[in-house]
Amino acid sequence: MTITGPRIEPAPATADRPSHAAPVVPASSRRTGVGIGQVDLDTSGFWGRKQDTNRRATLEHCLFWMERLGWLENFDRVARGETTIERAGWQFSDSEVYKLLEALAWELGRSADVDLQRAYDGLVARVVAAQDADGYLGTAFGHAGLADRYSDMAMGHELYNVGHLLQAAVARLRTQGSDALTDAARRAADHVCAEFGDGARAAICGHPEIEVGLMEFGRATGDERYVRQATLFLERRGHRTLPVRPLLSAEYFQDDVPIRRAEVLRGHAVRALYLSAAAVDAAVDNDDVDLLDTLENQWARTVERRTYLTGGMGSRHQDEGFGDDFELPADRAYCETCAGIGSVMFAWRLYLATGDVRYADLIERTLFNVIATSPREDGRAFFYANPLHQREQVEEADEGVNTRAEGGTRAPWFDVSCCPTNVARTLASLSGYVAADDEGVAVLAQYMSGHYAVADLTFDVSTTYPLDGTITITVVDAAEGGGVLRLRVPNWCARATVVTADGEPVDVSPGWVDLRVNAGDVVELRLDTSPRVTWPDPRIDGVRGTVAVERGPVVLCAESADLPAGVTLNDVVVSTTDAPIVWGDGARIAAHVRPPSAVRSGRPPFGTRPEPGQAEPLALTLIPYHRWAGRGPATMRVFLPVGQE
Amino acid sequence: MTITGPRIEPAPATADRPSHAAPVVPASSRRTGVGIGQVDLDTSGFWGRKQDTNRRATLEHCLFWMERLGWLENFDRVARGETTIERAGWQFSDSEVYKLLEALAWELGRSADVDLQRAYDGLVARVVAAQDADGYLGTAFGHAGLADRYSDMAMGHELYNVGHLLQAAVARLRTQGSDALTDAARRAADHVCAEFGDGARAAICGHPEIEVGLMEFGRATGDERYVRQATLFLERRGHRTLPVRPLLSAEYFQDDVPIRRAEVLRGHAVRALYLSAAAVDAAVDNDDVDLLDTLENQWARTVERRTYLTGGMGSRHQDEGFGDDFELPADRAYCETCAGIGSVMFAWRLYLATGDVRYADLIERTLFNVIATSPREDGRAFFYANPLHQREQVEEADEGVNTRAEGGTRAPWFDVSCCPTNVARTLASLSGYVAADDEGVAVLAQYMSGHYAVADLTFDVSTTYPLDGTITITVVDAAEGGGVLRLRVPNWCARATVVTADGEPVDVSPGWVDLRVNAGDVVELRLDTSPRVTWPDPRIDGVRGTVAVERGPVVLCAESADLPAGVTLNDVVVSTTDAPIVWGDGARIAAHVRPPSAVRSGRPPFGTRPEPGQAEPLALTLIPYHRWAGRGPATMRVFLPVGQE
Repeated sequence: MTITGPRIEPAPATADRPSHAAPVVPASSRRTGVGIGQVDLDTSGFWGRKQDTNRRATLEHCLFWMERLGWLENFDRVARGETTIERAGWQFSDSEVYKLLEALAWELGRSADVDLQRAYDGLVARVVAAQDADGYLGTAFGHAGLADRYSDMAMGHELYNVGHLLQAAVARLRTQGSDALTDAARRAADHVCAEFGDGARAAICGHPEIEVGLMEFGRATGDERYVRQATLFLERRGHRTLPVRPLLSAEYFQDDVPIRRAEVLRGHAVRALYLSAAAVDAAVDNDDVDLLDTLENQWARTVERRTYLTGGMGSRHQDEGFGDDFELPADRAYCETCAGIGSVMFAWRLYLATGDVRYADLIERTLFNVIATSPREDGRAFFYANPLHQREQVEEADEGVNTRAEGGTRAPWFDVSCCPTNVARTLASLSGYVAADDEGVAVLAQYMSGHYAVADLTFDVSTTYPLDGTITITVVDAAEGGGVLRLRVPNWCARATVVTADGEPVDVSPGWVDLRVNAGDVVELRLDTSPRVTWPDPRIDGVRGTVAVERGPVVLCAESADLPAGVTLNDVVVSTTDAPIVWGDGARIAAHVRPPSAVRSGRPPFGTRPEPGQAEPLALTLIPYHRWAGRGPATMRVFLPVGQE
Repeated sequence: MTITGPRIEPAPATADRPSHAAPVVPASSRRTGVGIGQVDLDTSGFWGRKQDTNRRATLEHCLFWMERLGWLENFDRVARGETTIERAGWQFSDSEVYKLLEALAWELGRSADVDLQRAYDGLVARVVAAQDADGYLGTAFGHAGLADRYSDMAMGHELYNVGHLLQAAVARLRTQGSDALTDAARRAADHVCAEFGDGARAAICGHPEIEVGLMEFGRATGDERYVRQATLFLERRGHRTLPVRPLLSAEYFQDDVPIRRAEVLRGHAVRALYLSAAAVDAAVDNDDVDLLDTLENQWARTVERRTYLTGGMGSRHQDEGFGDDFELPADRAYCETCAGIGSVMFAWRLYLATGDVRYADLIERTLFNVIATSPREDGRAFFYANPLHQREQVEEADEGVNTRAEGGTRAPWFDVSCCPTNVARTLASLSGYVAADDEGVAVLAQYMSGHYAVADLTFDVSTTYPLDGTITITVVDAAEGGGVLRLRVPNWCARATVVTADGEPVDVSPGWVDLRVNAGDVVELRLDTSPRVTWPDPRIDGVRGTVAVERGPVVLCAESADLPAGVTLNDVVVSTTDAPIVWGDGARIAAHVRPPSAVRSGRPPFGTRPEPGQAEPLALTLIPYHRWAGRGPATMRVFLPVGQE
């Protein structure tokens, strides 16, 4: 079942393998995201390397684990009529198979590969064989020995699974075109419309995903019924119709308030973000300005009050959920990898709908500090939760199935294993989130080394970003009379200059910068990525009296591996008098070691004011947060206590 | 079913109603806790009033809800052979009935009451009728339509339920003597020994409780088999024999490390505390000095690193569990009421075993700030979790069954409703935790107005404590030649004096103070309860840069009800330059209102250093934490940001 091996050269774009294939294609939009074939990332660049590792290792890794755990055999059992209550995996394990199919479809869309194609075709055959005659497709309900179809709308995840099937089918439809999978997806979508359409069963699924799946499948097939059904599911939500379950609130399911009346994202973070992404799609395709406006406000309030420095979302392990405003503890940050992906999905759709640069800014923050943090260097282990503070060093790396979403080391697989396949499909389609054609303007929203064809321009991007802030763009080809290149000056950047063909550096401010370019032009964007100190809003209790250090788009952290013997991260206090300096791919900052305060025997750790004590000076090394735990188990802090406490 | 009505005068102590009835009676100990008949609390005092409310309101309230929800009928259904899968309540609902029986038994042990007696007898009849011929007693397993007996040792709670039955039987045995309930308890205990004894099924229950129940039942009946069985359960634990369950770790069940090798309490807090209490019993009765030593160390480490200012334990909603060392966030503090009760059980046993004052100190802290916080003034609503910071004001009080353990207001009942009946049995037996006979020395460990008969002394305690720190003790009677009275000077108290019959005030330090007294002597202990500022250990990230204010044993808090219009607790910063002053039953402290920092549009709440801005001075009123939410829903903080941030 090996799917590595010699890589086959990218196939040329053809009708069967169109270069414009993108994950999000609004029905009418002045901005169009680039297709995955329009961006060819250099495997030497930060993201190109990750994408390559994904292709070479992660896809096979996911296939291996799902076969091993019986999640694939679940489909065979349905096909053979041998289902039992002893089914392997959770009720949402089918979705992992679909997310892997989506990842494979995007990869195969960018370049042919015999082994990956064989893996894809093999999976499709097994999935399709499990479909019922009426279009129902699911291995956890509705067959002998299992609970009835749709008997658990709150937690059954049946429509959630179908939503991921539809997203896989979209990837296939837009790359290699229709096949057995896309036919099965259409039958499944038709079944959902028949079962849950207007006048039929007025229910919703506890985990949003069918909405975003139906919406894009409607766009990809041109069949508006699917868009209408997605809209119906969105409108039905928020009326507390999901059956109450012990210990789970309506808020958990976003069933507490209709999406039009909500003011902020709340409840289970991934649920909230998938739902919001679908709602943007509906607002755009239905030309619903009020809904779009509401969603922009919800996004802003969520980002301003419920989002971590890393872009991570979800403050609570309990419910994997958002917390209250300014409830952003570093140690118990959940920041699920899948929530980071959901946030990129939501923000990218808002960018396409509005052109606002702030959405691209958040995407950058999330890519470098959540999504890049999850996979291990070799693509075969992952973080599920991404806390900003690890208090205790775990004993050793987890090499089996992690039964929890927490750990302190990346794990090969999880009992609830949504993140690995989500990373896989996101990296496989990553180029779909980095550039856009805005009425002929070539928008470069993210900086990744590679070759680009956007709007009227083809150009090469060369950079060691985020290590260095210099991005060199060589225009290879342009339409007659040239074209406009729109660059993003990130909101974290205090000093940025553009050097154009004319040679004179021009200072530019955060936001979009438009440049008229011609073939042969070389443009240089110079972003000051000097390490900088960042203060939290004083309303955030969890990190009061601390600072973080960032370098360009990258959040840094201190790790125990870089401390002198005998010093723990509990006792390090930094000084902000001098600016931190560049150190490797991170920084160094002046600090001192506080003598550990005496434990008061048998009393809770509260008492009279601690004495300052003799402080030992220390130059504290900081590394990119996305690399933490890369040298083995460690303790770690992003937020560092500062000055007098 | 009313059980209020005219109170009948306490019955005199007789063989049937012995005054020495106490919840914890080690087989051999130089210290003996007083019996519930040896302390008669004044209903005008802080605790006497709560105990009276418990008797007059809470007991009936619990009975009402358990009848309403079908938790009592579960027993009738078993008796009638009509069990179904549609059984009401969780698998541990039987235990609530037993905890109410325990509360009733202690109350009836202190004074007869026709209505309470009728309630008790009625419950006993229904419980006993559900017992199987072989001694098995449980309504959630082992009958038609239900899962098999002991088919879910991890989460079935069958032995947990029996443990509470045994504790109820102990209360009855030691007060009114044997009856149908104690006979049933003996049959149940015999069944447990036969089923799980040496050579039989080598299993443990996922929720410790059977251990502490068997131990005390063995003591009360003088049958050592039960003590041996409890010891066996304790020794079996920690070897990862409980079946692994998705998302629940061995640590959750304290099945990760044998109790002798553990260094700190971890996992589910109530489980850990009940287990630890039983382990002290085993160490004492088996004369196991090593085990006792280990438990003392575990207690100390837990208190020093994993315990809140309130004495509350449990830092995580996830798993209702302990966190890592110094993981003590105020807003997401769990501090389950039942964990507070478990902590008192553990600490009281350690006090009896060692005589160390620090155990009594923690009990005081926990009583005033966790256990006193849970019940509403009228005894008909309760807090389950006791966070130290309420960020958002809930809309209205919860008047039905609260499906979550959180809320912001006290709730009449919970889906998982362990706390109300636990408060009821604890208040009913409270006098059993306040004083002891230490080889003839009368130890007064807690200060509650009332009449006491301890060792060779009878005395009255008169005080408005904790409002005021003056405690007046009048010795009513003493043995020939007088006796020794041992008073506790609390560890929070920086200035304390004792005024004895001689008239000269003597300064005393925290710890025990022994006084020789004779009949007629009046002793006054004067504890300085001036409001004081308390700093957290700098290693606690969740409350860095804040202080709390305490007054005597009482933790204070700021509540939104006391703020000027337009000011929120997010923006108040206190000053510690001047000491806080007495204000009502709380304090006032100098503060200022910080101008809310500007939200940076569409960006996470981190950035450049916030400008100090113009500060508005404010005298901030603080009230006892145990009274919070007593004036309706509110926001609340115990820890207040201080000075420059």
